[in-house]
Amino acid sequence: MNFASDNSYAAHPAVIEALVAANSGAVMGYGADPVTERAEAAIRDLLEAPEAVVRFVATGTAANSLVCAQLAPSFGRIYCHADAHIETSECNAPEFFSHGAKLVTLPGAGGKLDPRSLDHALRIGAGVGLNGGLSALLSITNATEWGTVYDPDEVAALSRIAHDAGLPVHMDGARFANAVATLGCSAADLTWRAGVDALCLGGTKNGAMAAEAMVFFDPARAAHFDYRRKQAGHVLSKNRYLAAQMLALASDGLWLDLARGANAKAQALGRAVIEGGGRLDQPVLSNGVFATIAAATHARARKAGALYHLWPDKSAETADQVSIRLVCAWDTPEADVTAMAALLRG
Amino acid sequence: MNFASDNSYAAHPAVIEALVAANSGAVMGYGADPVTERAEAAIRDLLEAPEAVVRFVATGTAANSLVCAQLAPSFGRIYCHADAHIETSECNAPEFFSHGAKLVTLPGAGGKLDPRSLDHALRIGAGVGLNGGLSALLSITNATEWGTVYDPDEVAALSRIAHDAGLPVHMDGARFANAVATLGCSAADLTWRAGVDALCLGGTKNGAMAAEAMVFFDPARAAHFDYRRKQAGHVLSKNRYLAAQMLALASDGLWLDLARGANAKAQALGRAVIEGGGRLDQPVLSNGVFATIAAATHARARKAGALYHLWPDKSAETADQVSIRLVCAWDTPEADVTAMAALLRG
Amino acid sequence: MNFASDNSYAAHPAVIEALVAANSGAVMGYGADPVTERAEAAIRDLLEAPEAVVRFVATGTAANSLVCAQLAPSFGRIYCHADAHIETSECNAPEFFSHGAKLVTLPGAGGKLDPRSLDHALRIGAGVGLNGGLSALLSITNATEWGTVYDPDEVAALSRIAHDAGLPVHMDGARFANAVATLGCSAADLTWRAGVDALCLGGTKNGAMAAEAMVFFDPARAAHFDYRRKQAGHVLSKNRYLAAQMLALASDGLWLDLARGANAKAQALGRAVIEGGGRLDQPVLSNGVFATIAAATHARARKAGALYHLWPDKSAETADQVSIRLVCAWDTPEADVTAMAALLRG
Amino acid sequence: MNFASDNSYAAHPAVIEALVAANSGAVMGYGADPVTERAEAAIRDLLEAPEAVVRFVATGTAANSLVCAQLAPSFGRIYCHADAHIETSECNAPEFFSHGAKLVTLPGAGGKLDPRSLDHALRIGAGVGLNGGLSALLSITNATEWGTVYDPDEVAALSRIAHDAGLPVHMDGARFANAVATLGCSAADLTWRAGVDALCLGGTKNGAMAAEAMVFFDPARAAHFDYRRKQAGHVLSKNRYLAAQMLALASDGLWLDLARGANAKAQALGRAVIEGGGRLDQPVLSNGVFATIAAATHARARKAGALYHLWPDKSAETADQVSIRLVCAWDTPEADVTAMAALLRG
Repeated sequence: MNFASDNSYAAHPAVIEALVAANSGAVMGYGADPVTERAEAAIRDLLEAPEAVVRFVATGTAANSLVCAQLAPSFGRIYCHADAHIETSECNAPEFFSHGAKLVTLPGAGGKLDPRSLDHALRIGAGVGLNGGLSALLSITNATEWGTVYDPDEVAALSRIAHDAGLPVHMDGARFANAVATLGCSAADLTWRAGVDALCLGGTKNGAMAAEAMVFFDPARAAHFDYRRKQAGHVLSKNRYLAAQMLALASDGLWLDLARGANAKAQALGRAVIEGGGRLDQPVLSNGVFATIAAATHARARKAGALYHLWPDKSAETADQVSIRLVCAWDTPEADVTAMAALLRG
Repeated sequence: MNFASDNSYAAHPAVIEALVAANSGAVMGYGADPVTERAEAAIRDLLEAPEAVVRFVATGTAANSLVCAQLAPSFGRIYCHADAHIETSECNAPEFFSHGAKLVTLPGAGGKLDPRSLDHALRIGAGVGLNGGLSALLSITNATEWGTVYDPDEVAALSRIAHDAGLPVHMDGARFANAVATLGCSAADLTWRAGVDALCLGGTKNGAMAAEAMVFFDPARAAHFDYRRKQAGHVLSKNRYLAAQMLALASDGLWLDLARGANAKAQALGRAVIEGGGRLDQPVLSNGVFATIAAATHARARKAGALYHLWPDKSAETADQVSIRLVCAWDTPEADVTAMAALLRG
Repeated sequence: MNFASDNSYAAHPAVIEALVAANSGAVMGYGADPVTERAEAAIRDLLEAPEAVVRFVATGTAANSLVCAQLAPSFGRIYCHADAHIETSECNAPEFFSHGAKLVTLPGAGGKLDPRSLDHALRIGAGVGLNGGLSALLSITNATEWGTVYDPDEVAALSRIAHDAGLPVHMDGARFANAVATLGCSAADLTWRAGVDALCLGGTKNGAMAAEAMVFFDPARAAHFDYRRKQAGHVLSKNRYLAAQMLALASDGLWLDLARGANAKAQALGRAVIEGGGRLDQPVLSNGVFATIAAATHARARKAGALYHLWPDKSAETADQVSIRLVCAWDTPEADVTAMAALLRG
Repeated sequence: MNFASDNSYAAHPAVIEALVAANSGAVMGYGADPVTERAEAAIRDLLEAPEAVVRFVATGTAANSLVCAQLAPSFGRIYCHADAHIETSECNAPEFFSHGAKLVTLPGAGGKLDPRSLDHALRIGAGVGLNGGLSALLSITNATEWGTVYDPDEVAALSRIAHDAGLPVHMDGARFANAVATLGCSAADLTWRAGVDALCLGGTKNGAMAAEAMVFFDPARAAHFDYRRKQAGHVLSKNRYLAAQMLALASDGLWLDLARGANAKAQALGRAVIEGGGRLDQPVLSNGVFATIAAATHARARKAGALYHLWPDKSAETADQVSIRLVCAWDTPEADVTAMAALLRG
């Protein structure tokens, strides 16, 4: 029973089939192949963004960091939530790729930025002068690291504040599919129509082996981006295998189907938490459950072999209660979900 | 009446005389000259650290950032106070010089780190794994950005926690002289005897034109440091002029005399704040006064031409009260101090 | 008929089978899975290096640059051939990852460094002082960018010179398998027994989709390397898919079988060049043919749809002759080789 | 007798006087002071460039590297002479500041770039694609590292080629004054009127303590440059002392008077080389003499205590002859020049 991460799970059969289908004969390398062309087009279609520049990389850290570096100079300030993946989980990669940009972290309930606190932070940022650096970028995550989601209006409100201050907007969409699946909106509504300038669209956590798309809605913002990606060792010579994965996910709505499945499993676990007398620390809006459960329940689950993380860290643990994160993937076995739910119900 | 910054003031005549004295004939460049040799020795003497490696640069940002980069890798975590100069006022220089190290900022009353919160942060840092980066360095500022000071015991307590976690300790001593002047301890007691591994000893704010010393108490920590400094454009070819400034300050206790003078002026202003019904936000322990005064007093001072900063920023201002910072330099005119004190007393 | 690059070709069925076999159930991410464990062990076995640290990445540029950055500081000098891939074909990635290290390029017939010129360069490098930077690393490529190979004695001679000057040795082995296949020596003889400190062992050009191994023979040289890799976005969360590829190649000698096959095709093309009156610019010792052929032959080949690069660039073209590079992969169709040979024979 | 470097010598009395004059009272820091304002204006006047952005730093390495980083991205190619100071003598600073830009070095007689070889290199550079990086900047040095000079027509020819390829032009003018003194042209003719986009105008080697100006003729190219300078620790808080030096040199033609004096001394030494049977390796066009002299002459000079460098390095030394560099400063004693000339004449 592995609820540690959606990264722990496998690739969808359609992804493997796409790899096999692509695995034939010679094509030109570095993305000048027909599979890449089709995959980039498929992502543009998915986003209803015919002019967008789409590129692929193998990891979410690379995707986020390359985009941040493209949009923020070394002396820039990147505004993000204090729990943003780029702040907590990428080993200073955004700082490395940008050669020094500072992540200015903001609080916010449920992992979400509050428009007022963003506005306040940007006003302060406008006054720090050379000493404090140049306000350069807003980065938001959707779905968030706490399993919550921004709806299109919320994204638009944040984007407006950023744009008014002259900053473009990056969306870390490692779990973008889960957010769209929950919201039932279009991908376009949640991104460029809401002011997002660049999207990192995750594949790895949603059934790919290792594939993420980076999307610049305005091609002007992607100037020389291929050089940047190449210099970071993130241009694959046999790019078709990267592209094929994203193409498979983007085909026939597979990306949303997989996200819906994962979300539904999380919903089931969330209900079990409540039924077992635990507390949901956040509403279950994507594929993660953030809950506080009785220490006895936790002990029982561990004994049964359940894998998951304490969250945010061990400091949240008391004698009686334990705060945990449970993450479901597209292929978390139903039996495991049922068994875990039973454990949670006590 | 300028109380904006100690940077606003001039160089001491002895510094100028030292420059003039050094300004004769040909010597070998890049620090291979006798003035540099004497100045490095003088700093070692001042610190009772005969083995220390001493080097000079022209700015405090360079000094701090070079030392941080020497002691922390790009994937490192540097622990410091949320109001530390390296976090708020160096335009991402530590991140730039280190190629991405992250400043992990901690709260703490009076601009001072609390041993318990440091200990807690290091425990969290020990558990973040690859995602969060490698805990690499503790950086403390003495005197702090809020005019307070750590005494030797306090420094030792923080150093012990850092060392126990395997981290070396950097002290940003842009106003180190002011701290020593207040504490009446030896420079050695406040640094290496209290566990400090590297000190940036400020000259600029204490009567130099532009000169700071970087001191590594253990020469092994300075391996290849000259290359790092050179690559950053911070090796002066005519190094004697940099060295002469520090030599002048280190001679005959001038550095402490100047700091004592500046501190005394701040004390006078601090007393005036109280007498005028204002509130000292921090005790006056170095050359800065951090106070909240009546809006009317503020208006009167501004009208009289007094220059100073609102602190920490304009958001601290209400209809009735204004929080301000007043900084005194070695050469802030006594008449200005008297006039400002009168304004503060109302 | 694609002879443009070994990157143009597909993945071996055994690689795909390994992916499919790995594609089941949940494992811990970021390399803490059994496939990764087995693959790292397989590479250690292949190299008879039980203590070596082995890690995987998806591109050769990442592999080379991460290793170079691990072994050379930002102010370092990396000595390599003027035609080395790290100099000509990685878009400044070694400079980026190392934050500024300079590639000091040396000439050398057939893409190979000459011990005397290396020795001379290191002597100069020892004298450049702070101005010129710190001699830090020797990087050699085997097989070279000109299809030639260093034998173990040649590697040992270069390593000895580097070690005598205090520099470790990196081998870019993007086509290491082709070199071993030609030389008939052991992988150990060609690397650590000959003084190589770190090897980048290519998989992508030898039948993988996108997989390279980085090997540090002395674990001490790999200190904190996982942080470096993570910070660069080159740690895959689902690492098993990367590892499975290398495991497949390392199993049952597949890596050498594939290299031998590619080499044999190049041999056939090389013979055809000679028979057609062309000139081999380099002996055919791996899977590339570097030849000068009659312009008419070139025109005929192009007309027949043959894809290949002029080499080193168009400036080598005259009215009568054209210098070209033909690269064979493990799966270049025999029919294409036969057809191309016929064209070359005229 | 020190002919090792113009860096070995002192600051002109007028520079010291300017420092003393500036050393009074409080001004706003970081360049917001009247001396800085006047000095920037003086440099604009000197260059007849009323719109130019002028900033000061303390070292030539900082000046060159900041400007290169401003004009070239991390994945850029900077074209320069193989003997350019930025390549040979700045410890990878341009690579560090730009985060990885590659110096593409070109040969050229007398330290000067040849238009044809530049044109050829740019054509190759236009074809290297992602692999080779983006052609980004031309950097030329005037006077060159071999004491020669480009006249305005030569600069214009190189600039035209660069501009045609879309590259801006940087001039390293550490000894710009010496070039202008020799050519008798205006500073404007040798820079912006000849297509130079950014100039580093040296003060340190020409009578300053430590001061260089950076000039962007088109303000648009200086966007956010102050942040870049600040982040590198090269904004002096007490900027007036930096500015005062450049102001003194720019006043009353002092900069040219000092350069003329230094040049004249080099001329005298050059004549002595010839009279003594030695060979001038380069014509004496600025303040350096590059000559090959008899080993006996060299031995005699050393014995007499003359300091100078072998050039380019010791490898140029044979049993009979030694190649040397002699550099004269504004204040190299006439007696030393006379004595050295006598030694050279034998």
